[in-house]
Amino acid sequence: MKVGIIGATGAVGQQMIQCIEERNIEIEELRLFASPRSEGKKQVVNGKEITIQVVKEGSFDGLDVVLGATSNAMAKEYAPAIKAAGALFIDNSSAFRLMDDVPLVIPNINREDIFKHNGIIANPNCSTIITCMAVNGINRISKIKAMIASTYQAVSGAGQWGIVELGDQIKAIEAGEPFETKTFPHQIAYNCIPCIGSFKDDMYTTEEVKMENEGRKIMHLPELNVTCTCVRVPVYRSHSISVSLALEKPITLEEAKAAINAEKYLSVVDDGLYPMPLRTTDTDNVEVGRLRYDHVLENGIALWCCGDQIRTGAASNAVSIMQAWMEGQN
Amino acid sequence: MKVGIIGATGAVGQQMIQCIEERNIEIEELRLFASPRSEGKKQVVNGKEITIQVVKEGSFDGLDVVLGATSNAMAKEYAPAIKAAGALFIDNSSAFRLMDDVPLVIPNINREDIFKHNGIIANPNCSTIITCMAVNGINRISKIKAMIASTYQAVSGAGQWGIVELGDQIKAIEAGEPFETKTFPHQIAYNCIPCIGSFKDDMYTTEEVKMENEGRKIMHLPELNVTCTCVRVPVYRSHSISVSLALEKPITLEEAKAAINAEKYLSVVDDGLYPMPLRTTDTDNVEVGRLRYDHVLENGIALWCCGDQIRTGAASNAVSIMQAWMEGQN
Repeated sequence: MKVGIIGATGAVGQQMIQCIEERNIEIEELRLFASPRSEGKKQVVNGKEITIQVVKEGSFDGLDVVLGATSNAMAKEYAPAIKAAGALFIDNSSAFRLMDDVPLVIPNINREDIFKHNGIIANPNCSTIITCMAVNGINRISKIKAMIASTYQAVSGAGQWGIVELGDQIKAIEAGEPFETKTFPHQIAYNCIPCIGSFKDDMYTTEEVKMENEGRKIMHLPELNVTCTCVRVPVYRSHSISVSLALEKPITLEEAKAAINAEKYLSVVDDGLYPMPLRTTDTDNVEVGRLRYDHVLENGIALWCCGDQIRTGAASNAVSIMQAWMEGQN
Repeated sequence: MKVGIIGATGAVGQQMIQCIEERNIEIEELRLFASPRSEGKKQVVNGKEITIQVVKEGSFDGLDVVLGATSNAMAKEYAPAIKAAGALFIDNSSAFRLMDDVPLVIPNINREDIFKHNGIIANPNCSTIITCMAVNGINRISKIKAMIASTYQAVSGAGQWGIVELGDQIKAIEAGEPFETKTFPHQIAYNCIPCIGSFKDDMYTTEEVKMENEGRKIMHLPELNVTCTCVRVPVYRSHSISVSLALEKPITLEEAKAAINAEKYLSVVDDGLYPMPLRTTDTDNVEVGRLRYDHVLENGIALWCCGDQIRTGAASNAVSIMQAWMEGQN
């Protein structure tokens, strides 16, 4: 298996490399692509030194899979060349997610969709992955009819510069020095910013509608209604989501917990304990807790879940898609 | 008018004093009570030096109003003496809030209940005050039938020591030094803690059920159903709340905004802007924004609101109750 990573030097690209190492995935050749700034730098992966390249003509020739950890614009730019080279493009950007012939996959949930691809498989939005993973077990035993979600999103969702900006602001405030806001529209240190992405005509943000649009496609629930409020909080790299679910038929909390615990990379943390973003930081695990009967929604269950944005919300899911696809080839 | 404050040296007590000064409330005598640790210390209020006392027999004699900024236990201990002295006790603790003969008041909403008191008027829970203030204008034009709320609560809600703990943890982490968690059950710096108060049998926390129980009483909506998830975030002193409302009849977003803006201490911040905890810090204003049609609830409206926990959520509301009561005496 020969694999390329575009955007290899960013937070998600680096995490993809680490996931490949941790999971001992057998890769014959790994090519790392990044911007001219990083060209020629070396990185050791699984004991082999790899030189970082910029994408040129023929860069993707001979590759089986290309993992994308870049912007929408770059993903769109490189997709034709990746397809022409005959490689499968597993893309983390939102450029292709809602296209009819592009599977949008969380392997726990709709692994079978992987094999319907037409050259591209999309990796879902980070909050959407974590939330869908948290509620999927429940959906298996009682179909989700509607969902109200409020997110507590880590700064890593804005990439490496989001992490740097929170750290820099904290340092500047502690030192009593002025600071700039660059990655975020306002100070994020000691603040909450209820706007991620940009506003649509209906006053939802582009980030908020992903939970509804992508959730419908991933869980095969075309009529799912979602109200989502996406909020950036001063946490480094794990997202948290407060969720209320309306279900087709009533289930008990014990049934819900058993259904969640039966899923891969999922664990119930409840009964005196509870998930927290610090607990899931730098792990591939989604924690679900605060399970209780919702007072408002029909057959309602309320819960709270946390997952690492860079791993579960991006890199690990993309690598899991690649692994599931590889297994399907054998 | 002669006024006493118990718990005068804490975060809320100090803010009550500042509110009294800012609003130029005419007070003939102000007595400040605190623990023996502070006994004998001096504080200048409106140009007059006041010596801090501990509560002794006769401490409340001659007072018209006592503002309480102490624990439930202390409030219960002093209430009989305050009543015996003939003073009105406006208490910020949760000790008396749900008692039938104790009005629970936000002057914007149920000012008339002030005059039904039997010696005690209770000041509601901080998140409940900010949320009820935010939604009250909407409730005036279309009755609220149900509410789903997720909070982003500042550390000041745990008192002065909550503020100190966040600051100390940030400093220790920056310096690479170990630190203790005392006020909060876990590290709050760069974390979210989805547990405020203690767990009840139904797995809701004591903090979460306040939104339902107190909301029903304040807004005179005995059948209001509320699902609330209370979460502590690393923000210093403004709470934020993500709210979805189910309403009796449909209203437009423009009607909702006009209704909110018509209320005292309220402003709509929307259309490209949005409320943030840093914007409302150290102000008496509740900001409401992110208004949009909810995708799940009947005649639903979703919104996001912020308010200062120490002021709006505690001290200013207590002082507003006192002012409204004073006006009713004239």
